[in-house]
Amino acid sequence: MSDIRKDPFSNTWVIIAAERAARPHVEEKEAEQDVEHCPFCENPEITAPIPPYATCAGEEDKDGNWITKIIPNKYPALTPDPQLEQEQIDGIYHNLTGVGGHDILIETPEHKYFSWSTMPVEQIQAALRNYRCRYSFWQNDPRIEYLSIFRNYGHVAGASLKHPHSQMVATPLVPPRIEQELEEMKRHYEQSNHCLMCHIIELELKSKTRLIMENGDFAAFTNFAPRFPYETLIAPKKHMDAFEEITDEQITNLAALLSELFKKFDKLLNDPPYNLILHVSPLRTSGLLYYHWHIEIIMRLSQPAGFEWGSGVYINSVAPEEAAKELIKTAT
Amino acid sequence: MSDIRKDPFSNTWVIIAAERAARPHVEEKEAEQDVEHCPFCENPEITAPIPPYATCAGEEDKDGNWITKIIPNKYPALTPDPQLEQEQIDGIYHNLTGVGGHDILIETPEHKYFSWSTMPVEQIQAALRNYRCRYSFWQNDPRIEYLSIFRNYGHVAGASLKHPHSQMVATPLVPPRIEQELEEMKRHYEQSNHCLMCHIIELELKSKTRLIMENGDFAAFTNFAPRFPYETLIAPKKHMDAFEEITDEQITNLAALLSELFKKFDKLLNDPPYNLILHVSPLRTSGLLYYHWHIEIIMRLSQPAGFEWGSGVYINSVAPEEAAKELIKTAT
Repeated sequence: MSDIRKDPFSNTWVIIAAERAARPHVEEKEAEQDVEHCPFCENPEITAPIPPYATCAGEEDKDGNWITKIIPNKYPALTPDPQLEQEQIDGIYHNLTGVGGHDILIETPEHKYFSWSTMPVEQIQAALRNYRCRYSFWQNDPRIEYLSIFRNYGHVAGASLKHPHSQMVATPLVPPRIEQELEEMKRHYEQSNHCLMCHIIELELKSKTRLIMENGDFAAFTNFAPRFPYETLIAPKKHMDAFEEITDEQITNLAALLSELFKKFDKLLNDPPYNLILHVSPLRTSGLLYYHWHIEIIMRLSQPAGFEWGSGVYINSVAPEEAAKELIKTAT
Repeated sequence: MSDIRKDPFSNTWVIIAAERAARPHVEEKEAEQDVEHCPFCENPEITAPIPPYATCAGEEDKDGNWITKIIPNKYPALTPDPQLEQEQIDGIYHNLTGVGGHDILIETPEHKYFSWSTMPVEQIQAALRNYRCRYSFWQNDPRIEYLSIFRNYGHVAGASLKHPHSQMVATPLVPPRIEQELEEMKRHYEQSNHCLMCHIIELELKSKTRLIMENGDFAAFTNFAPRFPYETLIAPKKHMDAFEEITDEQITNLAALLSELFKKFDKLLNDPPYNLILHVSPLRTSGLLYYHWHIEIIMRLSQPAGFEWGSGVYINSVAPEEAAKELIKTAT
């Protein structure tokens, strides 16, 4: 059982999960992970979903073959079993029982579709439908406040397995980074009666200074203050706080944009390691006028070091305006 | 000239420093950096301090040979030349001109003393005296609000050169992580009339749950909510907000403790990559009763991935109580 602790000096939370020490080391060479040694490929014992996942556990084709599959992580950071309790030690230290969930979406039976640049766009659509489904699923557990969905790609970016997958971590608290977004976006709304992200999208579509691409429903642009080179945001053009409200048509448009964007990333940056992260409204909120869901993609081409960890200030050697220009020029 | 930008969604600041793209890549194998190719070894052109550094630029022995030397970084994130100006674009985006300083302390002429576990303790003392001196130096520039001093060790931890060195980044703002510490520690003081770090040291010395070692002036203990395995804090036992007030006697005790601690780290964790970071009160404050300077050491044995970057919550597979036990047991 894990333990969630608050740093007394900051608003950082840490999950102490000793069980995870046993998982495969991300430092192991990726090349060593071939199809024969991949636990996600054709091992029914590992990939069979457990009962609480009976609904919303993936998709099958008309012949009953799996297309996508959701399974519990073998080395979970949080588990659904414990009772939620809050402890407090001597008025300084705060912790919570590590209740929550930590699941894996296996995005395809095909081991080789590593990047979203080479994965068939229908398979990306299926992954996005599964994301939507899991937000609805966790709405039903009142102990859970937030669902973090992310995709780690490449061992530098923290992926310990090559087979295409995403992860889903359900937490009994709203994570500090989302809390801060909520606070900043609420402040902007109260001052201007306008959603901050709607405002930014309007500005970026007009100025085209950082816009990479757009389609009917979505815009992709580099972040004004990027922690990492080529850091990119994707957001629906129309205001939308919760990912689970995404329509099938929007999913088609989002998958098309992601597929095209990753073709550009892979060509320009030579198949870079990255983290793709969904930022959404907390599960216990609805219809927020000031929060706007979005996807953040960070390229892991540089290592944050002492300055970044100690200060919370990031040094980035690629201006986002230059990054956008380069990505626009990259033919796919 | 670099540009400091605020992320509209958070309190994160980013320094866009395009000049730094030319610096040696940290991904290059460390083994390739031998003495013959080290720019810090015996190249007087590179290591000669420029005029503004005439005072507080290092130390010499009685024969005029250098012991330590402070030089401007060849690829600075910030420079002292520009005028400080604040811009604002369309009510959303905020930025500042990148005024500040980015210097290197070459800790010894000896290339081979990579880790503080093998460096003579007198040389660590000299490095700490130089840290103290630079805090006093930047007090004289009213544009500068904070001086970040840190030591990156190992290429995974962001060090692009092997020769023993520390870095010093002077910024025109108090970094968000320090601002948050100030806020949390001020709140604690207002509630209890007690400095939070004094309170924690008292608790850790008494309980010995996370205490690694102590001497007359200092205590070293693992952090209650560590972002990284074996994350360690070192603080003066008596209340002290500013590093520049450290006495020569305290420096002797601090260097002895650091030398012993790194012997333990290197033995237990096999010469691990790390970041060592000073956390001090801002330059424009004095005599803060609620802030207590400390050193943070983070081992870079694991990679933060999508969950950490997206949420601000960290998953750590080593409990700090276990880490302290292991470090205590490690003979040096």
